[in-house]
Amino acid sequence: MTVAFVPPAGQAGHMLARLRAARPLVQCATNHVSMDLVANVLLALGAAPVMASAPEEAAEFSARANAAVCNIGTLSRDRVASLEATAEAARLGGKPWVLDPVGVGAARFRDETALGLLRRSPTAIRGNPSEIIALARAAGVGTEGGAPRGIDTAHAPAAATNASAALASRHRCVAIASGPVDEITDGRRIARVANGAPMMARVTAMGCALSATVAAFLSLDDDPLAASAVALAMFGVAGEIAAMDGGAPVGPGAFRVRFIDAIHALTPEELDRRARFLAAGEG
Amino acid sequence: MTVAFVPPAGQAGHMLARLRAARPLVQCATNHVSMDLVANVLLALGAAPVMASAPEEAAEFSARANAAVCNIGTLSRDRVASLEATAEAARLGGKPWVLDPVGVGAARFRDETALGLLRRSPTAIRGNPSEIIALARAAGVGTEGGAPRGIDTAHAPAAATNASAALASRHRCVAIASGPVDEITDGRRIARVANGAPMMARVTAMGCALSATVAAFLSLDDDPLAASAVALAMFGVAGEIAAMDGGAPVGPGAFRVRFIDAIHALTPEELDRRARFLAAGEG
Amino acid sequence: MTVAFVPPAGQAGHMLARLRAARPLVQCATNHVSMDLVANVLLALGAAPVMASAPEEAAEFSARANAAVCNIGTLSRDRVASLEATAEAARLGGKPWVLDPVGVGAARFRDETALGLLRRSPTAIRGNPSEIIALARAAGVGTEGGAPRGIDTAHAPAAATNASAALASRHRCVAIASGPVDEITDGRRIARVANGAPMMARVTAMGCALSATVAAFLSLDDDPLAASAVALAMFGVAGEIAAMDGGAPVGPGAFRVRFIDAIHALTPEELDRRARFLAAGEG
Repeated sequence: MTVAFVPPAGQAGHMLARLRAARPLVQCATNHVSMDLVANVLLALGAAPVMASAPEEAAEFSARANAAVCNIGTLSRDRVASLEATAEAARLGGKPWVLDPVGVGAARFRDETALGLLRRSPTAIRGNPSEIIALARAAGVGTEGGAPRGIDTAHAPAAATNASAALASRHRCVAIASGPVDEITDGRRIARVANGAPMMARVTAMGCALSATVAAFLSLDDDPLAASAVALAMFGVAGEIAAMDGGAPVGPGAFRVRFIDAIHALTPEELDRRARFLAAGEG
Repeated sequence: MTVAFVPPAGQAGHMLARLRAARPLVQCATNHVSMDLVANVLLALGAAPVMASAPEEAAEFSARANAAVCNIGTLSRDRVASLEATAEAARLGGKPWVLDPVGVGAARFRDETALGLLRRSPTAIRGNPSEIIALARAAGVGTEGGAPRGIDTAHAPAAATNASAALASRHRCVAIASGPVDEITDGRRIARVANGAPMMARVTAMGCALSATVAAFLSLDDDPLAASAVALAMFGVAGEIAAMDGGAPVGPGAFRVRFIDAIHALTPEELDRRARFLAAGEG
Repeated sequence: MTVAFVPPAGQAGHMLARLRAARPLVQCATNHVSMDLVANVLLALGAAPVMASAPEEAAEFSARANAAVCNIGTLSRDRVASLEATAEAARLGGKPWVLDPVGVGAARFRDETALGLLRRSPTAIRGNPSEIIALARAAGVGTEGGAPRGIDTAHAPAAATNASAALASRHRCVAIASGPVDEITDGRRIARVANGAPMMARVTAMGCALSATVAAFLSLDDDPLAASAVALAMFGVAGEIAAMDGGAPVGPGAFRVRFIDAIHALTPEELDRRARFLAAGEG
């Protein structure tokens, strides 16, 4: 049984201020669609992206990096080698890293790649509920007797909650199912974050940028559950700010521009004021 | 001899409404420059992009997809394998797919790749007039006696009209030469669309995004000629809306943002009101 | 000893006008993060980007191109082959080309790749001061007795000045260290440009876009030092215009959009009025 976790008042803003002071270097083995947004979100946040991930140089860049993200989108044999090199370098160097299992469950190649990365001890896993469920299924956890049954049709929060808890417990990591209410668990505690805006689902690579943002916050070497929850709140608050221009909703093109500006302009005080961490029983 | 085709009144808006209700999944084997714009245009339109195209997983993603686009830009040996796997999976699964022969005619590697894809029965081919002419030439169609002569200097609409008709007839597909007035033919009928704005030529990957948009409309399984003509009109109308802010023209940076917003906000009624399908003899 | 160089009054605007009239084709072997921005900046400037660089077709596209840029970011074995093919084709065809040694000094793979390209006679090298210093070090120039000592800690302008001069002299090229004050030298003369805005460092791929812009200006076949200095001034002036909306600073999302618009709208007259080429002793 997991217990509800709510970050102490002021922790979100404090972490944001510390991140900006530290300017962490985040090594991004991310997919080809998301590179521009991932790099610009990290820069707007006050982190520094490095997009080098080839097997020939992943370890050397990892030695300089403070955290990493491995995203299995636009997969290819070459990208598998880059992802494994980046994850392995992070693991050996004790650097926190985030696994983003984009599209896991939709193709065997994704499943095998995700499982190969899972064996390299991610600090956090970030996906949508379907991806978290599919990853748990591929990993053989979170299902009675190990046999996945009928789970594909059930992408409701409750189903992802079980899968998240199982992944987190078995792999000693934080599992994050993001959505209208994000659920973040380390297997023992669960945080829920209710920030965000529907428009975030209409812009490509937002999930990838979120995973990179989690990596940036994990570089602070705090409690990974708290750091992940704060990253989700920061991302969601920026989305809320970007989605409305005065009282009017904006389109997805303008949203993407305003989202980057909102991350850049967000103050620790506003983050603390707007972050919505749900307590037990809250909905 | 081809006859003029004009979609019936109201068909454009009706198709747009149906596309948004269906939310088709479009598999994009597109070039590296265009991935961000292609994905965001499809999302703004109400479709769902999937950018997976590696030989190891193209077929599995194709099984879930409703249409595909194969774009030969930023070509490499790896991309050729991805393009062929995606086109072959679409062909075998009976999914409509669009060939975008970027840069064909400028290098043998492009010609060979385009011809290899052409053999996999695209539902539509979309290029600028020069690309359509070059592809017809490489395929040995549309030239008297099979010998291409002096065609490089003649990229006027008339030259592309013949090449389009020849490609469409020989390969039983729709051929689209896009430009100030788009020409769309299935070899028997020809539609001409007069929407668009000059600024569309000053933003990279607009042609790629157009080809993906055609794929999204082809997923409706209507008459491919009508679906292609409506896709072109939708794209051009959004360009017209994006190009002017109040009475003032906008720059290419703002245009790109506003273009995505215009696609997202376009109503079926406004599309029907602004679409300009030319009748026979109209210019 | 180098002497200060200041382009004659009116040369900057004149070059911009000539570039727009010529519409040079710039072949871009650039990294995956930067493709969208590089292509859009070139289009806004009035140049035409071509992103083809694979060994199978680099030479054919080079034959049509007026200049090239080789950028070693997001490096991989495949990209090394593309970079070498593009640089070699430019060298053999006598086309001006720019080397952008992104991240050189951070990994052996980068150093080896940069040195392999340096042997193919770039017309200009463009990096930040750290990259210029690291490249000079890797190339064994600009250090007494050939032994690099303690240079990593000294990325002050003076250190880059020596490294630039040594690279330029040894490799008969223009070396550009960009920063708040850009330094551009051919080993004999040095130009300094004081345009730009701090926000330019908060948007990804701006350095890559700058290198492509230098390539576009080099296509004019003027004095490469003057062409490079004008390219840097044009880029910096556009940054200054983009950074302020009325009297208020803008965020990095809006900046990127406004920057492209500023390049597109910049008149030769405004460029001449705002370009800040520093004379000897000026700071």
